[in-house]
Amino acid sequence: MDKKYWNSRLRNMQGYTYGLQPEMTPDTVKLNTNECPYPPSPRALEAVRAAATERLRLYPRALWDDLREAISERYAMPRERIFCSNGSDELLSLLFRTFTDQGDPVTFTWPTYSLYPVLAEAQGVVIRYAETDTAFRIPFAELPASGGRLLLITNPNAPTGILEPLAAIEACVRDFPGVVVVDEAYIDFADNPEAVTALPLVGKYDNLLVARTFSKSFALCGIRAGYCFGHEDLVAALVLAKDSYNLDMLAQAAAAAAMRDCGWMEANAARVRATRERAALRFTELGFTVLPSQANFLFVTRPGSDAATLCRALGERHIHVRHFPMRRLEQFLRVSIGTDAEMERLFTVLAALLERS
Amino acid sequence: MDKKYWNSRLRNMQGYTYGLQPEMTPDTVKLNTNECPYPPSPRALEAVRAAATERLRLYPRALWDDLREAISERYAMPRERIFCSNGSDELLSLLFRTFTDQGDPVTFTWPTYSLYPVLAEAQGVVIRYAETDTAFRIPFAELPASGGRLLLITNPNAPTGILEPLAAIEACVRDFPGVVVVDEAYIDFADNPEAVTALPLVGKYDNLLVARTFSKSFALCGIRAGYCFGHEDLVAALVLAKDSYNLDMLAQAAAAAAMRDCGWMEANAARVRATRERAALRFTELGFTVLPSQANFLFVTRPGSDAATLCRALGERHIHVRHFPMRRLEQFLRVSIGTDAEMERLFTVLAALLERS
Repeated sequence: MDKKYWNSRLRNMQGYTYGLQPEMTPDTVKLNTNECPYPPSPRALEAVRAAATERLRLYPRALWDDLREAISERYAMPRERIFCSNGSDELLSLLFRTFTDQGDPVTFTWPTYSLYPVLAEAQGVVIRYAETDTAFRIPFAELPASGGRLLLITNPNAPTGILEPLAAIEACVRDFPGVVVVDEAYIDFADNPEAVTALPLVGKYDNLLVARTFSKSFALCGIRAGYCFGHEDLVAALVLAKDSYNLDMLAQAAAAAAMRDCGWMEANAARVRATRERAALRFTELGFTVLPSQANFLFVTRPGSDAATLCRALGERHIHVRHFPMRRLEQFLRVSIGTDAEMERLFTVLAALLERS
Repeated sequence: MDKKYWNSRLRNMQGYTYGLQPEMTPDTVKLNTNECPYPPSPRALEAVRAAATERLRLYPRALWDDLREAISERYAMPRERIFCSNGSDELLSLLFRTFTDQGDPVTFTWPTYSLYPVLAEAQGVVIRYAETDTAFRIPFAELPASGGRLLLITNPNAPTGILEPLAAIEACVRDFPGVVVVDEAYIDFADNPEAVTALPLVGKYDNLLVARTFSKSFALCGIRAGYCFGHEDLVAALVLAKDSYNLDMLAQAAAAAAMRDCGWMEANAARVRATRERAALRFTELGFTVLPSQANFLFVTRPGSDAATLCRALGERHIHVRHFPMRRLEQFLRVSIGTDAEMERLFTVLAALLERS
């Protein structure tokens, strides 16, 4: 590979390792990328079909008028505090292009969503890691002093699933000198989302953004739609920095319909939550330590079993879970919550594997 | 607006002024954003409907497998020389994040697509303009010496519609020290696209990218899909820099189906071409000077008529054309080619306006 035309950041970049997207055969159990095991709202699918007309020859709404309206109604949030993106990926990338200059310091916790460091590297900013404690809890008291232009917190955290208390987050937002982004991709799977979300803080602080996505609880990974809430001066910056037409007509239609059918999403989230609690027990019975998760995945480790080996053995049996070969994470597996039948198959195969070894 | 959290580039940025997207009433004639007046392939619409299933809960293909295959077959181009993006917008933005470092020089012609300078500003690179001559022809001989990490040429050019000869482009690619991007968004509207495209140069030079889009000749603005061809080492850099899942499942399905039904696109392009030639005559009869266009728009000026005033007067009558209040362009109008009926209405209203003044 000749990199002579690549820029200096890219030349040294590893890139993001996304989860394997295997061919889906009937016996594939895909628990590696935190997709929802249940289908999206039928109204979202109907909206896509209804939008498949010759109007696709026209540009989509640049500011996602109807989608923004649907989000605004659901969360009782004014439109100018809402931003929509081509998946959360686009938002996360835009954060760096909007709120940091090259060489600026940014703060991440460790561990965190493994895409953040890749984006930081691509933008040439300097990462300061705030290490979680031995229980993987975020050291909130240290964060304001760590400083920087940007602080990214995932809550519930990835890949641990641990939910942090709102009071600690609010204190951190109040004291942090730069923009604080609370990525709530998984919050709908928490036991009581409305009691733990940072949404009530939006607008109260001029440096807070709260990110959400249609990929997880809304079961719409395939349409690439994310959204976020924040002070209007932050949203205005994101609007200025984004591509003019960043979200296509079909995604806007599907997302708006899904947002207007939140009962469907909540029913799916409740099923995932129930399966998660049963699965945590089963892992424990098999000798695993299970971190307390409020997301749609479990982060588990088993003394005496090598996580990478287990991950590979499961994969050979078409059961895909996620292993992160990274500091402090290498002896864990992240297992997305599937249907009860999928989890049953996982535990049957896992029990046989452990018995053999 | 408090910009204290914005980065330094954004604070001074004007942003891109995209064309007005008016509400489409029955008497609206929308000739301001170069959309195709004819519908996209019915197969593309069918593909969208067929893709509206529960599979949307899964992530899309990160490397657009089926779409890339369809493009590869159509253009007899190996897959590793093909890149797909969320509209050409994403590709253009990625170019700067991939091939330039902050402060690097880049070369644009003037005039050119008005988004380029905005993207350059957002990335903090230094623009060198190569001025077109009095006939708006690109000064190819000067370009290599202008230097820089990146050279963007639109061919046919925007907003003029002028097509430049392949030999001049090839010489420029050969001699330019950085990456040369030939944006062929409008090339399917040229009289003989296959004779004038830079595609035969792809792979022959390690610094060439040729950009295309589904928005114009394929009549699919609404799905946001662009694609480009280039040396595999350039494509590899773009793949590394892009968001993991940059193109949603529905857009991939629609674009692949449209690409496999190129006869539909070519028939639309032929109709646009025929209308363009008739429209050019009509403009001339009304006292306009018409630049020779090989795109789906005409760039026209009328001695004695103020372009901004004309644009406004047409807009008040629900006929939307584009005016650029920029150096050398302020006395021109850019008029997209609509249906024959739409053009008829434009000329009727225009004739009445000119008679009155």
